[in-house]
Amino acid sequence: MGSEKNFQMKVVTGEFGYVLQDVPHFTDYISDLPTYPNPLRSNPAYSVVKQYFVDMDDTVPQKVVVHKDTPRGIHFRRAGPREKVYFSSDEVHACIVTCGGLCPGLNTVIREIVHSLDYMYGVEKVLGIDGGYRGFYAKNTINLTPKVVNDIHKRGGTILGTSRGGHDTIKIVDSIQDRGINQVYIIGGDGTQKGASVIYEEIRKRGLKVAVAGIPKTIDNDIPVIDRSFGFDTAVEEAQRAINAAHVEAESAENGIGVVKLMGRYCGFIAMYATLASRDVDCCLIPESPFYLEGKGGLFEYIEKRLKENGHMVIVIAEGAGQELLTTKNEQDASGNKLLQDVGLWISQKIKEHFSLLRKIPITLKYIDPTYMIRAIPSNASDNVYCTLLAQSAVHGAMAGYTGFTSGLVNGRHTYIPFNRVNERQNNVVITDRMWARLLSSTNQPSFLTAKEADEFKKELEPPTQLLDDGRNGEDENSGTNFKVIHLLRCLSCGQ
Amino acid sequence: MGSEKNFQMKVVTGEFGYVLQDVPHFTDYISDLPTYPNPLRSNPAYSVVKQYFVDMDDTVPQKVVVHKDTPRGIHFRRAGPREKVYFSSDEVHACIVTCGGLCPGLNTVIREIVHSLDYMYGVEKVLGIDGGYRGFYAKNTINLTPKVVNDIHKRGGTILGTSRGGHDTIKIVDSIQDRGINQVYIIGGDGTQKGASVIYEEIRKRGLKVAVAGIPKTIDNDIPVIDRSFGFDTAVEEAQRAINAAHVEAESAENGIGVVKLMGRYCGFIAMYATLASRDVDCCLIPESPFYLEGKGGLFEYIEKRLKENGHMVIVIAEGAGQELLTTKNEQDASGNKLLQDVGLWISQKIKEHFSLLRKIPITLKYIDPTYMIRAIPSNASDNVYCTLLAQSAVHGAMAGYTGFTSGLVNGRHTYIPFNRVNERQNNVVITDRMWARLLSSTNQPSFLTAKEADEFKKELEPPTQLLDDGRNGEDENSGTNFKVIHLLRCLSCGQ
Amino acid sequence: MGSEKNFQMKVVTGEFGYVLQDVPHFTDYISDLPTYPNPLRSNPAYSVVKQYFVDMDDTVPQKVVVHKDTPRGIHFRRAGPREKVYFSSDEVHACIVTCGGLCPGLNTVIREIVHSLDYMYGVEKVLGIDGGYRGFYAKNTINLTPKVVNDIHKRGGTILGTSRGGHDTIKIVDSIQDRGINQVYIIGGDGTQKGASVIYEEIRKRGLKVAVAGIPKTIDNDIPVIDRSFGFDTAVEEAQRAINAAHVEAESAENGIGVVKLMGRYCGFIAMYATLASRDVDCCLIPESPFYLEGKGGLFEYIEKRLKENGHMVIVIAEGAGQELLTTKNEQDASGNKLLQDVGLWISQKIKEHFSLLRKIPITLKYIDPTYMIRAIPSNASDNVYCTLLAQSAVHGAMAGYTGFTSGLVNGRHTYIPFNRVNERQNNVVITDRMWARLLSSTNQPSFLTAKEADEFKKELEPPTQLLDDGRNGEDENSGTNFKVIHLLRCLSCGQ
Amino acid sequence: MGSEKNFQMKVVTGEFGYVLQDVPHFTDYISDLPTYPNPLRSNPAYSVVKQYFVDMDDTVPQKVVVHKDTPRGIHFRRAGPREKVYFSSDEVHACIVTCGGLCPGLNTVIREIVHSLDYMYGVEKVLGIDGGYRGFYAKNTINLTPKVVNDIHKRGGTILGTSRGGHDTIKIVDSIQDRGINQVYIIGGDGTQKGASVIYEEIRKRGLKVAVAGIPKTIDNDIPVIDRSFGFDTAVEEAQRAINAAHVEAESAENGIGVVKLMGRYCGFIAMYATLASRDVDCCLIPESPFYLEGKGGLFEYIEKRLKENGHMVIVIAEGAGQELLTTKNEQDASGNKLLQDVGLWISQKIKEHFSLLRKIPITLKYIDPTYMIRAIPSNASDNVYCTLLAQSAVHGAMAGYTGFTSGLVNGRHTYIPFNRVNERQNNVVITDRMWARLLSSTNQPSFLTAKEADEFKKELEPPTQLLDDGRNGEDENSGTNFKVIHLLRCLSCGQ
Repeated sequence: MGSEKNFQMKVVTGEFGYVLQDVPHFTDYISDLPTYPNPLRSNPAYSVVKQYFVDMDDTVPQKVVVHKDTPRGIHFRRAGPREKVYFSSDEVHACIVTCGGLCPGLNTVIREIVHSLDYMYGVEKVLGIDGGYRGFYAKNTINLTPKVVNDIHKRGGTILGTSRGGHDTIKIVDSIQDRGINQVYIIGGDGTQKGASVIYEEIRKRGLKVAVAGIPKTIDNDIPVIDRSFGFDTAVEEAQRAINAAHVEAESAENGIGVVKLMGRYCGFIAMYATLASRDVDCCLIPESPFYLEGKGGLFEYIEKRLKENGHMVIVIAEGAGQELLTTKNEQDASGNKLLQDVGLWISQKIKEHFSLLRKIPITLKYIDPTYMIRAIPSNASDNVYCTLLAQSAVHGAMAGYTGFTSGLVNGRHTYIPFNRVNERQNNVVITDRMWARLLSSTNQPSFLTAKEADEFKKELEPPTQLLDDGRNGEDENSGTNFKVIHLLRCLSCGQ
Repeated sequence: MGSEKNFQMKVVTGEFGYVLQDVPHFTDYISDLPTYPNPLRSNPAYSVVKQYFVDMDDTVPQKVVVHKDTPRGIHFRRAGPREKVYFSSDEVHACIVTCGGLCPGLNTVIREIVHSLDYMYGVEKVLGIDGGYRGFYAKNTINLTPKVVNDIHKRGGTILGTSRGGHDTIKIVDSIQDRGINQVYIIGGDGTQKGASVIYEEIRKRGLKVAVAGIPKTIDNDIPVIDRSFGFDTAVEEAQRAINAAHVEAESAENGIGVVKLMGRYCGFIAMYATLASRDVDCCLIPESPFYLEGKGGLFEYIEKRLKENGHMVIVIAEGAGQELLTTKNEQDASGNKLLQDVGLWISQKIKEHFSLLRKIPITLKYIDPTYMIRAIPSNASDNVYCTLLAQSAVHGAMAGYTGFTSGLVNGRHTYIPFNRVNERQNNVVITDRMWARLLSSTNQPSFLTAKEADEFKKELEPPTQLLDDGRNGEDENSGTNFKVIHLLRCLSCGQ
Repeated sequence: MGSEKNFQMKVVTGEFGYVLQDVPHFTDYISDLPTYPNPLRSNPAYSVVKQYFVDMDDTVPQKVVVHKDTPRGIHFRRAGPREKVYFSSDEVHACIVTCGGLCPGLNTVIREIVHSLDYMYGVEKVLGIDGGYRGFYAKNTINLTPKVVNDIHKRGGTILGTSRGGHDTIKIVDSIQDRGINQVYIIGGDGTQKGASVIYEEIRKRGLKVAVAGIPKTIDNDIPVIDRSFGFDTAVEEAQRAINAAHVEAESAENGIGVVKLMGRYCGFIAMYATLASRDVDCCLIPESPFYLEGKGGLFEYIEKRLKENGHMVIVIAEGAGQELLTTKNEQDASGNKLLQDVGLWISQKIKEHFSLLRKIPITLKYIDPTYMIRAIPSNASDNVYCTLLAQSAVHGAMAGYTGFTSGLVNGRHTYIPFNRVNERQNNVVITDRMWARLLSSTNQPSFLTAKEADEFKKELEPPTQLLDDGRNGEDENSGTNFKVIHLLRCLSCGQ
Repeated sequence: MGSEKNFQMKVVTGEFGYVLQDVPHFTDYISDLPTYPNPLRSNPAYSVVKQYFVDMDDTVPQKVVVHKDTPRGIHFRRAGPREKVYFSSDEVHACIVTCGGLCPGLNTVIREIVHSLDYMYGVEKVLGIDGGYRGFYAKNTINLTPKVVNDIHKRGGTILGTSRGGHDTIKIVDSIQDRGINQVYIIGGDGTQKGASVIYEEIRKRGLKVAVAGIPKTIDNDIPVIDRSFGFDTAVEEAQRAINAAHVEAESAENGIGVVKLMGRYCGFIAMYATLASRDVDCCLIPESPFYLEGKGGLFEYIEKRLKENGHMVIVIAEGAGQELLTTKNEQDASGNKLLQDVGLWISQKIKEHFSLLRKIPITLKYIDPTYMIRAIPSNASDNVYCTLLAQSAVHGAMAGYTGFTSGLVNGRHTYIPFNRVNERQNNVVITDRMWARLLSSTNQPSFLTAKEADEFKKELEPPTQLLDDGRNGEDENSGTNFKVIHLLRCLSCGQ
């Protein structure tokens, strides 16, 4: 079986335009595998449940805003336990690795993978990989038992440790093979999922019966296709504290300005949702929406207007916003590399200079960066339930012989998504959609776009199909693959 | 136009089994109404947004677990702003009423209706009805301006006041007519939405151009069709405090038992989700799942087993659980009425008696009832965003001439749902679905069903269609109308 | 040495009316004990500290409101490390026991005793007694190491477990002797400290070199002499949640009444401070201040007045308030014992009956009992620091050969107080002092006393000395021993 | 009466070394003033209170660690209501001003001054000065009524606004005179209280019957004499969040270092208490204790040691720590002024450089600055009660004709302290006292002092009196005036 073929997407089509983008399965490249009845069958907890196992034909559509004559479009395979499994309980040797930055819920996912394997499938061999991908070959592993992980969901961070940056796929797969691991659970962001994809391909090349399951982690919510990433809800909640503080500081001073920097290197979801939830924010700046400081329609003009009207204002800025303004010749390092600067400090400085030097208006600006206080808290109840279901779905999938898949929520249903679909591009706030319009309407901030620019944006983003796809996240939905990203500033291997 | 016909559901059908259950519109019963271009057209905030207005053909399917050959099924109309509106800004005279028990987010919904009407549609006349339905005719109204409501989302409760119980539909509609009100926003639970339906019918009978829009409120999450009700997320989060406290109390005593009563008169969603989120609960009892105390497989046996194993345990009980056990002859009032007793106090007493008198095992039981502490808190960030979108959807709908509709989230998309669909039955935890199985698996509690009973339950609940409909809420989905409720203990006019 | 003499207080007098009420010491009843230089002398952490050791003559006055010609009065021995200790590090075999109800900070005290013994004095043998006093003879002990207790201060409750009720002093002292324990740290309330006093006396009778140190625990703050008990601050903070909720519930209903029951069997400190901190309370009822329901000047009259003025009200009631009203003939148990009833449920019922049956005024009453949610939380930062210093003081005292003492804060300084001083009576809110006057002024509630009663109260409470001693707790101070308690309802062995 | 004499301290002496440092009174410089009976006399709330008014002879000692033969030392006048007042209710025209940085509790103090004046003394004319001292002459005033301030204690910040920096005393006193104000309540820090002192002197020079009362505000707790400043408790509590986050970040990375900067320009109380309360901190750096980075016994060596032992560490640094290390020639501004740099960013950079460049040890450092999130929160319950009593004391004092005083807590009793005593020097952590020793012992960090330096420190700080004065704040006490401050870096007009 040629490797080219392997990595093509498995596609099933049906009536009325139905398309299933399926995930790989052991049987795609290994023949004559034995199967076993699912041990859940004898679990007393499930005895009352009618038709507990997921029907093999269950799928979930990517688009749920439809017309009566719309073709049915892309679907994903529904997650859940299958009647048959491809591992016996004794045979399973699982491992879990966490990579990239912290995110609320990491420990809950770890806990629930361990608990699901043990309590649902009787699996007792689960290893934790220490400190991210490199831990596969550079460190000792950690034995994970239900008891060890029992209370970890009440703590922030990850008990496994994490790291960013490069790793050696061959060494990782060697280690998997040498240690006899046959289920690999990989929790991490964009770069990590790309790494998982390469690991899966190498495993497939070697013809190993090793399931590779990804659980997407990104506090920024920048994973495409899925509804939201775990920890996002907790992060938006926690961001309210910083915004409240900025508001109090701003209100208590003459011409008080509170500036809050929130996470979001390439997308502004946290900034946007925190702004919508708070209602105390006068201006929200995100990477997807360019802005400029000076002149008519610029940020300074807007600030001056708000100070005149209200006497104070609050600005929320995502960490990746306005990067095109920051990086000038003078701000390169010795080797000439472009440095990603702290946009919060930068914009605070610029505002201070503008008003004190140029406009001679005394202002009091307070800058708050709550990033690490947000990342490090334990997940809230909503994220706890979500992490539990993501972990259980991943375990059900691996046991059922699926591999090369990501466990993800699509339109409120848990699904298995092929790696390449979540890796194909980053999720962004679509600044021409209604959620962003709502934000603009809520803050009354300018769009920082000229009419001409706005038109061009619209054109660029126009999906070729007839259907309006204008959003996502609890309301709208993505245009799928027919999407042209706004910014080119994309870091394909940021490792998160 | 005969009134019978009016109250039939508007249904549109399409290819491949597509069915749209549409909501009423002014044009159904009033002819020659003028329309106006949507004022949002000139809102600078929306200038960047491509195709901002919702396409008239956009609909959202009720079922999103599908097979490749499944008929498309029931759909609802997508919420959002329309190109044309049926009111001029000056003409609108809106009112808002809140009914039933408190729920986190009430003030946010009120705030956002006022803000949306003003900032989006230039509407300045918004009245608050004081103290629930009766306020229409028995009290003065309250003027609601954007300034008055600006900070209310940070406070729990409802600034309008609320009440339960009977009201006079004719007097309400008289008051609406006399005051010249033409948009009525009704926030309340089961009974309230039924009341709204009757008010709508009376308005339609009189041929009035008055939009009636419902926003479903129920902390219990017992509204059918929609994904979840607002405040639910906040309630589950806050319930964690009580469960944590019960766990600490139980752990610190010999044979310590912590009992927590949570909301849920007829459904156990809060209890179930709080249990899943916490992981410190050993037993969760809900109205949908009958249980018994004594004998083999009963609750006492299970408690004794857990105390032996762990030395302590935590029980979560929904307020409506086990009501069939409580109401005996001795527990009626003077007039012979069945009293809904406090199941938390009752079960605590029963457990104490069993262990001290019968089993002679010393236990320490602590009972916690956090109900009013949960209901009264402000909504969290996630519910704040949700309430905002619900309110905006309702306003867009009323402006566009729709009436007799509920604003609701279906599969992550905001929709307009006909009143009778949300009133037809109560939403329940389906104890034969996978979410409940997960709970059983997580707590390891018995199902309290004999094999025979379990079989019967399965049969009763079997939907006649071929498709598995096994759940909802972030994972599965409802079976729509083909559903036979478990309990008969349904209060059709509990007024919440 | 006669036992009578032993148990007399050690008193030292000085110039200008100076009196020191000293604590017992090993040298009082054992002769020729070896001493050792304090190991802290070589601790690098202390190298910078000038005169680190407490001067043997340092004492702290009980009264700090003085006149220029006032005699100096009673003093206590200052706590802290001494130059000489009466144990070598190897010789120490300590144990810790926790008794009575939960209180925020228990785990912090346990942690800090273990850490102080180990890090300051090199002591490695520390046992935890399981489940209160009876654990000395009825259960296995728990080894406590710095590592075991390292994170316990972040959890509520007590890792040692606790219990109430009877115990056998002889068996306890036998166990102490048999196990070779020579330092006993006893954390508990009123009854527990009395028990500690008896244990100390038995040990002294047997002539054992065993230090008995008490750390007073009572969430109610009802320990005399000391400034406040640990956990009190945390409890008052946490009580705010319940009061806020009651306020929101009351405000949202017509004639809404929120009733919150707080801890305080015999004293109303938590209720009083929570009321003063909140400012949302209209009436605070405590055990020390009798009240009546009906007639002129009664509670019902006041409630009706407030409802007319404000439309809603909040009542805070301490659990021991109004017990004289509750206990009627009908409310005795089979054996004729007086039952302490739930005053919160009782008063809620009485108010409902009065207004619905008698006054025909519709009210909405919500009752909140946050007791176990308050007791079970971890201590806040302020209590954490306080618990740390209490524990360190106790350890310094025991190492220095003191015994039969309580570690307590007096006028902001840590001291050693003889057992009989903290056991002599309970601390109460003195309803004729200014803090209570402030509360009355803050809530505007009536005093529920007739002029004649008020005069009698004043007379009863008049201290015979010339100086006004009108309060305590952050402001005023107690009258010491010249105090006649108001209520006779004192439970001498409630075991808390 | 010559002005020199006016500004000398009023001193009363008594037996056994008793000294009263009294506060000024109108009668010191105005003769024949009428007095009135205190209106509280007729307040029903006070009817039950025996001897409600403070005895004119009540005083509170500054030192409460005494020997049996110690002279009695310095005392302050006890705060509280007097039998006679020097204002009729109608006559009073009060104003309130807040200056300097935000601090939890500002709004509570404002609220309680207004409420005390109105409810206790029937005063209805209370003005708020807008935006700090300059508001006296540069802005309109704000009418403060009990209703306006009723809920402000639930919000952070100050509703009056605040500012730092210069002001014109003559213009302020002119404004006071022109507006007919006769009670001035000044809430602010070090510089503000000094300003209040000058305003008082100018008023006295002009012979005006205007009471000037200060309420010390400094989140840093750097006011001498008093037990603690309001908001401090809340700040220490809130700082725990940042420390927890730093701990989680550090634990989750290899060689993870969490750095938290806390408030404290010249004193490290918040850093010290937050460290003692948390127990997760490995190193606490404060302005009072010099440290160095490189070489034996330096910070880098300690960090490397901790990383080897534990794999991670947490550093808390007060904002004023190590300033002597930062300010080098290169770090001056264009005019040659020394810039106070962000020590948190600086030390983070230095640590990163040292380990990556010099030691080639990969570390992951996360820096958290929670300053503005801490300052802006509402006060907790404990600070709420404290602020209430401070405000009431100030009002009682002004009504009784006292002026030029600060309302402050001394040894747990509310007192009136002459301005010059609180302005004479700043309060500092005494690094040779036991609280700091406890911190060193708790973190195990080095003292960063050589034996020789330690000796010199001890000598410098040796108080000339015989008594050990080694601490304060809940445990020890200050040496009063015989104190030589450690650092010279004192900003006499920082305006806080």
